[in-house]
Amino acid sequence: MGSLSIDAAMQQPPLDPEALASESTAVMNFLAEYYRDVDKYPVRAANLEPGRLRALLPEAAPELGEPMEAVLEDVRRDILPGLTHWQSPRFFAYFPLNASAAGLAGEMLSAGLNVVPFLWAASPAAAELEAVVVDWMAQLFGLPRRFTFSGGGGGGVLQGSTCEAAVCTLAAARDRQLARLGHEAIARLVVYSSDQTHATFQKGARLVGIPPSNFRVIPTSAASGYGLAAAAVREAVERDAAAGLVPLYLCATVGTTGLCAVDPVRELGEVARAHGMWMHVDAAFAGSAAVCPEFQGYLDGAELADSVSMNPHKWFLTNMDCCCLWVAEPRALISALSTDPEYLKNVGIDDSTGKPAAIDYKDWQISMTRRFRAIKLWVVLRRYGAAGMRAHIRRHVAAAQWFEQAVEADERFEMVVPSRFSLVCFRMAPRCVHDHDAAANRANRDLLAAVNASGQAFMTHFVVDGKFLLRLAVGGASTELQHVKEVWELLQSMADQVLQRYHQT
Amino acid sequence: MGSLSIDAAMQQPPLDPEALASESTAVMNFLAEYYRDVDKYPVRAANLEPGRLRALLPEAAPELGEPMEAVLEDVRRDILPGLTHWQSPRFFAYFPLNASAAGLAGEMLSAGLNVVPFLWAASPAAAELEAVVVDWMAQLFGLPRRFTFSGGGGGGVLQGSTCEAAVCTLAAARDRQLARLGHEAIARLVVYSSDQTHATFQKGARLVGIPPSNFRVIPTSAASGYGLAAAAVREAVERDAAAGLVPLYLCATVGTTGLCAVDPVRELGEVARAHGMWMHVDAAFAGSAAVCPEFQGYLDGAELADSVSMNPHKWFLTNMDCCCLWVAEPRALISALSTDPEYLKNVGIDDSTGKPAAIDYKDWQISMTRRFRAIKLWVVLRRYGAAGMRAHIRRHVAAAQWFEQAVEADERFEMVVPSRFSLVCFRMAPRCVHDHDAAANRANRDLLAAVNASGQAFMTHFVVDGKFLLRLAVGGASTELQHVKEVWELLQSMADQVLQRYHQT
Repeated sequence: MGSLSIDAAMQQPPLDPEALASESTAVMNFLAEYYRDVDKYPVRAANLEPGRLRALLPEAAPELGEPMEAVLEDVRRDILPGLTHWQSPRFFAYFPLNASAAGLAGEMLSAGLNVVPFLWAASPAAAELEAVVVDWMAQLFGLPRRFTFSGGGGGGVLQGSTCEAAVCTLAAARDRQLARLGHEAIARLVVYSSDQTHATFQKGARLVGIPPSNFRVIPTSAASGYGLAAAAVREAVERDAAAGLVPLYLCATVGTTGLCAVDPVRELGEVARAHGMWMHVDAAFAGSAAVCPEFQGYLDGAELADSVSMNPHKWFLTNMDCCCLWVAEPRALISALSTDPEYLKNVGIDDSTGKPAAIDYKDWQISMTRRFRAIKLWVVLRRYGAAGMRAHIRRHVAAAQWFEQAVEADERFEMVVPSRFSLVCFRMAPRCVHDHDAAANRANRDLLAAVNASGQAFMTHFVVDGKFLLRLAVGGASTELQHVKEVWELLQSMADQVLQRYHQT
Repeated sequence: MGSLSIDAAMQQPPLDPEALASESTAVMNFLAEYYRDVDKYPVRAANLEPGRLRALLPEAAPELGEPMEAVLEDVRRDILPGLTHWQSPRFFAYFPLNASAAGLAGEMLSAGLNVVPFLWAASPAAAELEAVVVDWMAQLFGLPRRFTFSGGGGGGVLQGSTCEAAVCTLAAARDRQLARLGHEAIARLVVYSSDQTHATFQKGARLVGIPPSNFRVIPTSAASGYGLAAAAVREAVERDAAAGLVPLYLCATVGTTGLCAVDPVRELGEVARAHGMWMHVDAAFAGSAAVCPEFQGYLDGAELADSVSMNPHKWFLTNMDCCCLWVAEPRALISALSTDPEYLKNVGIDDSTGKPAAIDYKDWQISMTRRFRAIKLWVVLRRYGAAGMRAHIRRHVAAAQWFEQAVEADERFEMVVPSRFSLVCFRMAPRCVHDHDAAANRANRDLLAAVNASGQAFMTHFVVDGKFLLRLAVGGASTELQHVKEVWELLQSMADQVLQRYHQT
């Protein structure tokens, strides 16, 4: 225990194979123990007092190094109790962020080899594996061939998040227009989304310099299942064009964050085409379901899009972070994102092969630097196979359907929208509190707070048409039907308590 | 070997502790073997034929899962030969990207726990550990207290790369100006850099919508050691202001990519202050050296900056990816980057503690989603301590100085600029080829190509004032003086061969 001397801390070189093996073993044992116990922790961090961890830690980094065991002991004692356990089987909040044994193995390979495929020449096999893996993924999901390298013309890249994908495609769309119109026209560009589109697109549009007042949030309604109606987009676009603005970019979502609503991709694509707009399809969460043929229909019309993205780190057993972005015309992306400084030119390579038919992925993303994410996704696909991934998805879809039926069979509850993919949006019905909408909202808010405070499950909420609803996002890597049944029992018993209170007051 | 059935692939749950332990052990053994052998591989990928890996892999993802051993066997056979080995002790190209046993352990914890500290409430201890660790780092590097949370007012965040930091600070600076001037003024904003500044700032400025024609690249010269002269910036700024443009942002670099030149931070800061510009200090590589007091002088004047960044993933034993960004006024950053959709509002938390004095890090970066990078940097600091990190830095600085003396003692070679930190920029002298500058450039290009083709070392080049030079970037986690001595011997013997050719022709 205690500190090591300088000599001891640096006695072994930092990449000594024995040090690497022994420290990795310690962490691996720690993680295996964590997963044996994770179901016992309160799902949402029990200690929610800001500043608690800072008070436990020294004010400065240690002067001398310490043994790994001491470090892990502190993780166990000081950090674990302050974490919300995203990998708990009873985590139903936001959307899931899957971890898996294969995902961790892939992440270890990525971090362990620690190569940087920013230029093809800086690690050829890493860049090529990425191109192969994104083609495999496109094929698995039934995406049009125009988004693949092998199919001709298009291609994909692995980024860290949907927001990065939004920024890159918005910049590509923007520069394509500005090349024609001149840079001053940036203040006239308009971006379209629905009121269900992820906020990341609004943030992205603002980041690339689109005036915030030119971000259109088009209302949706129950009539379209909260999908974005093509007619409403057409109307907004025509109004803007008539006012001298330039329709630039339309985001269609397959599986919105609040409700898992699905926008009509084909109809929106036709509007986008007719008005020369870039259309992006955001399938961040629900895209994973398209590994099952029965879900591929939601992507019908994707051939009309300019780009599509989905996040394997959500529901595809791939540890953070990993977002697949496919584009139909890489040229547009590259021309917005490329740089060619002297220190990145390759010497003694082009001579032998001519200009290589190779991909410098730094020109496909925001950053120059990048991680070897491809090996992680590739390990996941190899380990579990397409069939294994389908089983993973269907297991959660079935559990969500079970839950939906349970809700519908209990008169105290109601579905707010039909469940889609593996998300269930429900609430205690207003009829339980004398048909009083405001009271129903308060009661549901109380129910959610009680569930989360219990530590037995963690869920989050949404509000649509003034209705406060609870979201049960099924999809955790360890989540089984049994956990969904348990959270239902918990909800039922807590609903009793909450409703009792509402009837007393 | 071969495929598993669906049942077998998914028989164990994806987070089964035993599966996790056994697959991680397989990877760990693979990595330990890799590091035992890494010195034997050609440093730059031996096989540079584009498409080679694609030809080896199937056209589609496997239908059925496969055992981890089969996957690792393919990594060994198909992927390793196509990698450039960034962790080889004889990797001297670009800048180093350090891996270490502690960095890998930290990365395993981050990927293994797989929590998402995008909102404070979504993993309080993860967000707080990040705030503590960036404060520790600021203190270690002698940064002004205004950039720390504990010092009052400022604070830091861990991002993925300098480019992300550039985009975020450029957006913050932009929005601060546009709030005053109106969005139309975006076409009048101007960004200043030197001809040695990393291209990532040009890319970043373009990403946030600054017209490419408003990016000023101010020439540097040998007279200032290729540092950016404050007088030249002042002149450019005054010219632009007189023309009705709006000086926005100035990037000062401590340790440029090509030559490790250092811009005069204090003088530039005074110009920036006088003209209401945001100044960013980019110390991506060389920032790590500031853990040693003898290098902190280069950051003198940083209190005049609005933001500072450096990358622990370069020379600070922290596996990819990790960039520290500190800002003096978080408000500016947050107001450019925040979003507050319904699905991210916390229920049942604010009630108990009031508005928490907590950080929602999603508002400090491009993406909403984020990894638990703080635990990685924290493990590195705990394991090696400040003293261990200083020893790591000084070992490389001393090796670079040894190399510089060797160059100066050999009449065939010359230094192009004095070595700074651990970068040596040198070339075969023109006098060796009859004082012919163009021939010298060709000879040095040939020398570099020969060294890299040998597989014994990997270096990259730079061009300054028309001189083609070789860069020896010392800093690999495993790189010792011995490796520097060996690459010097290699260069000497290859120089003989190259010069012979030039004297024959």
